[in-house]
Amino acid sequence: MRMSQLFTKTSKTAPADEVAKNAQLLIRAGFVYKVMAGVYAYTPLGLRVLENIKRIVREEMNKIGGQELIMSSLQKKDTWEITGRWDDDVVDVWFKSKLKDETEVGFGWSHEEAIVEMVKQYLTSYKDLPINVYQFQTKLRNELRAKSGIMRGREFVMKDMYSCSIDAEQHETFYNASIEAYNRVFDRLGLGEDTYVTYASGGAFTKFSHEFQTICDAGEDIIYVNREKGIALNEEVMDDENLEKLGIKRDELEKVKSAEVGNIFNFGTDKSEQMDFSFTNKNGEKQYVHLGSYGIGVTRLMGVIVEKFADDKGIVWPENIAPAKVYLMQIGDAATQKASEIYAAFEAKGITVLYDDRNERPGKKFADAELMGIPHRVTVSERLIDSGKFEYTNRQSGETELLTYDELYARMAQL
Amino acid sequence: MRMSQLFTKTSKTAPADEVAKNAQLLIRAGFVYKVMAGVYAYTPLGLRVLENIKRIVREEMNKIGGQELIMSSLQKKDTWEITGRWDDDVVDVWFKSKLKDETEVGFGWSHEEAIVEMVKQYLTSYKDLPINVYQFQTKLRNELRAKSGIMRGREFVMKDMYSCSIDAEQHETFYNASIEAYNRVFDRLGLGEDTYVTYASGGAFTKFSHEFQTICDAGEDIIYVNREKGIALNEEVMDDENLEKLGIKRDELEKVKSAEVGNIFNFGTDKSEQMDFSFTNKNGEKQYVHLGSYGIGVTRLMGVIVEKFADDKGIVWPENIAPAKVYLMQIGDAATQKASEIYAAFEAKGITVLYDDRNERPGKKFADAELMGIPHRVTVSERLIDSGKFEYTNRQSGETELLTYDELYARMAQL
Repeated sequence: MRMSQLFTKTSKTAPADEVAKNAQLLIRAGFVYKVMAGVYAYTPLGLRVLENIKRIVREEMNKIGGQELIMSSLQKKDTWEITGRWDDDVVDVWFKSKLKDETEVGFGWSHEEAIVEMVKQYLTSYKDLPINVYQFQTKLRNELRAKSGIMRGREFVMKDMYSCSIDAEQHETFYNASIEAYNRVFDRLGLGEDTYVTYASGGAFTKFSHEFQTICDAGEDIIYVNREKGIALNEEVMDDENLEKLGIKRDELEKVKSAEVGNIFNFGTDKSEQMDFSFTNKNGEKQYVHLGSYGIGVTRLMGVIVEKFADDKGIVWPENIAPAKVYLMQIGDAATQKASEIYAAFEAKGITVLYDDRNERPGKKFADAELMGIPHRVTVSERLIDSGKFEYTNRQSGETELLTYDELYARMAQL
Repeated sequence: MRMSQLFTKTSKTAPADEVAKNAQLLIRAGFVYKVMAGVYAYTPLGLRVLENIKRIVREEMNKIGGQELIMSSLQKKDTWEITGRWDDDVVDVWFKSKLKDETEVGFGWSHEEAIVEMVKQYLTSYKDLPINVYQFQTKLRNELRAKSGIMRGREFVMKDMYSCSIDAEQHETFYNASIEAYNRVFDRLGLGEDTYVTYASGGAFTKFSHEFQTICDAGEDIIYVNREKGIALNEEVMDDENLEKLGIKRDELEKVKSAEVGNIFNFGTDKSEQMDFSFTNKNGEKQYVHLGSYGIGVTRLMGVIVEKFADDKGIVWPENIAPAKVYLMQIGDAATQKASEIYAAFEAKGITVLYDDRNERPGKKFADAELMGIPHRVTVSERLIDSGKFEYTNRQSGETELLTYDELYARMAQL
């Protein structure tokens, strides 16, 4: 991608009403555009990051047998009345509107009821189970406040998966597979070390539910964590009884701020009974489906990654999700031809490049490269042309080396 | 994909309230699920078709320099009040709701105003132009009636592109390039022959606007077409004056029903003046942007393709967008091993296969293969195992041949 063709521009300032670091940096770097509080558009660079995160999540969900589909945003009142969740006193984040004939409709803030209603149409026998489906859906939630940038929006992208199982055992198998899949996702996003399966307040069937919490100062949650033992509790379940149950002492735990990047939930047969979501078992008897739901906040993850890895110069994207691997720039007109050759050669080899071909002074280009957080910067400098050397700088470490083209190419090709 | 693992099932009937052939077939074949009138979910098979269509559209938009981004569904009242299009008397398809503090918000039925407001933030100089951006957006439209299945929904996917140009000439260049890109899209979707750039009622700046109309009995439009000369007029502009202008006679034109699969529109500087969307020209003067908008109905296209190519047995997908190239099935237990080998071998070579490994009678499998419209059917039959032959059937022509594995593979690998 040539920067001269990108319509976005970097900026030294973010909108005055934007208080979250993640959104400030993403807006300044030209990755997102703020439509209104809690509502962001994703520009070409931001969309690339989002799609890279989705690709990783998709691969891991497919590995455990998830089938991707896409539900609708528009929701029927009937569907949600069955479980009592149409009521604004029960769910306070609905956006609602009306059809021309005055029929009320809602906009999907979640899709459990909708998924159950759909899968019901296809489910007859125990032979049809298990069924595991997921989607990347734009959720709309009428949040009272929206001050965390893309970490809590009124409109955001979530991967939500649902498992339909014959019994508790089949449910458990998938539930455990999903924990492993989630851990792989967070590992691949570079968040593995700081992300904990966290005990949180449970549903009707289990003492605890499981959240995936990433330690992050900008998070809205508080967890107590023992990093060595890999145990974490949400503040809400932090009491003597639970500490004993989990076999850990208060003074072994560190209190930290964290962001909930995923959650997995066992509904048992509760919702299935409410919605008459059933099948015929081996003995020809009616039996209710064991239901689980599994969320990952895709846009939130993008925000958490910005918050955690950014430094005072700007964003630092992990290798796997950066919008390009290489930020290529030239200093001096005499370097332009060589830079263009490298751009073409790298792109031809599948090494993605953001080529800063703008007619800007070097200081501006260096600053933009740092703000935008592309992992590897290559500078083709007029004064080095004769030496056959190129300046390579690692965004994360800041270390700079002079490399020949062959050395440079070998390193980038490894990524 | 193994059919035993797909949660959807085929059905002999569609919902009683579903009158459109496209939705009836798609529901029966398990490609879409009807949430309510005009609102459909896309199951794994349907989503594959949709993604295949999007891939083709995306490739062609990128070729002409389009930059993909994604705007928001939630829309600000202020943005649309500038052009008077917030008013329900002007735009009668808004879904609207309110934030907790009573601020009114809308849900995107179109994104012209939103795009202008965003691009404005980045545009300063004529050097920044042209800017061509597009998105695949889920549009929400409060349609009074929704009786055309996925051809006109209350929720649907549209590719909308916007061009921002310095002047009429730069606009014209992109406008013409987009006509060519659109023609390539419709060609690749198998609709090229029956899709016409059609003169329709124009905006403020041109006598005509251009629609892409595909001849289709289920379409909601009427056009007059001369297939040989490649000229088409929307009924709305069919009068003596326009016939003369276009140099064609009434009796040279055939009246047909058609579906609008795309449109391109020249706003001139009208909307830019309303929204103060401007830049500084070479002489340092303020100048308004020439704006164009370019739509393709992605979900509508899927519906049109079903309507046009389906026969009395079911859907017939064009090669390029089918959810799988091959429908593989076996007859008799002794054929299972061979069928599984072919499945593995084809998938390893990148030939996508829907493998009907269900324990169903052959008649049911044949009927489902036809209903689902996969282009190539391969039957591994017990009685042919010893001969080393396999039955190959072309979905479109219905022709059947007996082929050896090498012949079969050679043919499928060519696709």
